[in-house]
Amino acid sequence: MHNFNSGPSILPRDVLLEAAEAIYNFNNIGLSILEIGHRTEWFKNVIDESRLLVKELLNLDDQFEVLFLHGGATTQFMQVPMNFLSPGKNAAYCVNGIWGKKAITEAKLFGNVNTACSSADQNFTYIPKNLEIPAGSVYLHITSNNTVEGTQWQELPQTNVPLVADMSSDIFSRKRDFAACSLIYAGAQKNAGIAGTTIVIIRKDFLKNKNENVPAILDYQNHILADSLLNTPPVFAIYVSLLTLQWIKKEGGIDEMEKRSLERADFFYDALDRLPLFVPIVKKEDRSRMNAVFTIDDKKLEKKFLDVCSENGLIGIKGHRSIGGLRVSMYNALPMESLELLVKIMEQFSQQYTS
Amino acid sequence: MHNFNSGPSILPRDVLLEAAEAIYNFNNIGLSILEIGHRTEWFKNVIDESRLLVKELLNLDDQFEVLFLHGGATTQFMQVPMNFLSPGKNAAYCVNGIWGKKAITEAKLFGNVNTACSSADQNFTYIPKNLEIPAGSVYLHITSNNTVEGTQWQELPQTNVPLVADMSSDIFSRKRDFAACSLIYAGAQKNAGIAGTTIVIIRKDFLKNKNENVPAILDYQNHILADSLLNTPPVFAIYVSLLTLQWIKKEGGIDEMEKRSLERADFFYDALDRLPLFVPIVKKEDRSRMNAVFTIDDKKLEKKFLDVCSENGLIGIKGHRSIGGLRVSMYNALPMESLELLVKIMEQFSQQYTS
Repeated sequence: MHNFNSGPSILPRDVLLEAAEAIYNFNNIGLSILEIGHRTEWFKNVIDESRLLVKELLNLDDQFEVLFLHGGATTQFMQVPMNFLSPGKNAAYCVNGIWGKKAITEAKLFGNVNTACSSADQNFTYIPKNLEIPAGSVYLHITSNNTVEGTQWQELPQTNVPLVADMSSDIFSRKRDFAACSLIYAGAQKNAGIAGTTIVIIRKDFLKNKNENVPAILDYQNHILADSLLNTPPVFAIYVSLLTLQWIKKEGGIDEMEKRSLERADFFYDALDRLPLFVPIVKKEDRSRMNAVFTIDDKKLEKKFLDVCSENGLIGIKGHRSIGGLRVSMYNALPMESLELLVKIMEQFSQQYTS
Repeated sequence: MHNFNSGPSILPRDVLLEAAEAIYNFNNIGLSILEIGHRTEWFKNVIDESRLLVKELLNLDDQFEVLFLHGGATTQFMQVPMNFLSPGKNAAYCVNGIWGKKAITEAKLFGNVNTACSSADQNFTYIPKNLEIPAGSVYLHITSNNTVEGTQWQELPQTNVPLVADMSSDIFSRKRDFAACSLIYAGAQKNAGIAGTTIVIIRKDFLKNKNENVPAILDYQNHILADSLLNTPPVFAIYVSLLTLQWIKKEGGIDEMEKRSLERADFFYDALDRLPLFVPIVKKEDRSRMNAVFTIDDKKLEKKFLDVCSENGLIGIKGHRSIGGLRVSMYNALPMESLELLVKIMEQFSQQYTS
């Protein structure tokens, strides 16, 4: 199978093999990773190494804390404003797709919210270049990669306001000035593991602005004080993140991931631009290296194309149910061979059906 | 290894084998369970069957909804009052241990809270029989089994107020009138799977009392409307729950689990009562069938006993860090052989060190 899923998505084969082995016998201790206590040295080593690897791979110093929390990015949509926004305060949001829209909706429950930019006028097919950020905003929120719409911020916005970034679908895939962010969150199920845990990275000085009376499990400070062991964490999900982070490091770190990602994206978008049957819909300079979104004008042909992909073991190419069309996700673990086969099939399909 | 962990804890061997197999190849589809999309038919079948099995095993009809949510019971401590309590309204809490204390602390953030009963006067070593529940309380909250203190409600309290029960450590282990509850929650990592998902069971008519403006991911009604697929759920954790529920059913359901649980508890408490070196600390009638809590008066001997257990491959017997002492957890998957070996070692140790 060739797995182009948008998330949960393809994982490195080595990670799958080690994860399965650890279910039989974790680190040769005679117990399954699914049965060990979360306060054992065994698990403490897992979570400590995971947190260190995040910092090492993203080049973050000790000004930053790393947490592995329950839930996905949707939990963070409300947890961020619950911790930092309150009535009378303002937060600014860049709304560039379905996830940004969901994030801003949650923020409105907690305080005043301004739209710093929106690309709704053109169906979220681009990233706006001009931002309006009211002075005194407690943070600016962006979605660094829009998984559904296939756009990506090529550079983080420059701002004096603390930057909060949902990096769920492009963390660990490209170099960025991660240290410029005050808070980064990322559901693990794309480039950092499986569904069930979210990596949260917080700059310590940002925590000074945290609200009081946040429920214990949603208070970032509590998790930091408890070394990410405030309650029973999602042990196995964190273990798979560790394996994935180790794999990234072994392969050459973010530099290598970015190199491969650029090769994949260049190769695939080149095909999209060559083959007129397939219509890319995102503004060229804002195209995502992770998720290529496109269509075939003739909807019957689009369906047929999906059938051909399916017959050839290529899965996960249907667009998100909210916008339809086609989408090819090219995360860190996707082998070039999968893309080559896909492009070959696109070429054949194009030849057959282009009049 | 003989695993007496309090949670995450021992799982049936069949479940471990199937879980590992599914990481290689899920249901022979050529993909790992860790790589499939959560909106595929494959996963929809997993979650649908899991929800049905919960209802079947607990003998619940269609008045009840079953959800598999992110997070553990600690998340429910605040999610329950966030959905049902508000300023000016009252909720009643039975405070019989560390988890009940944490639950009531969270509730106080949302509205008025009354202590319906407490066993703090005797270090939480019993379950009070008299409850004071103010008329008009929006719910009564209990912890059905106190994992840390080793007490258990043998019968659910009779009340006209909607009953909310944290059953994290004894769900699926004994017959109860589950349908008498308005809301049940249970972190999966004891008798229902692994850390990373929580089963929430809600009586539909209780939802009429739900608050407005709850953040999307914390609103029970949203999850019901979305068929437990509001966001990317913890796919693998839910799959392990499915395997565990299937195992329970195959073995004979709750009736059989209760029978085995009684055998284990009778056998172990009998040893505790026979061997004067070991001091049970819970009132006899309130003893938990899941977690037996006891001490050795001489703390040096207690430490030595733990060493002897460890040398014999018996793990997880140290008491919770909040109260110390010793604890033996006897969940559904614990083989009688493990308990027999433990009791044999206790007898030898007792013979050696009883003066």
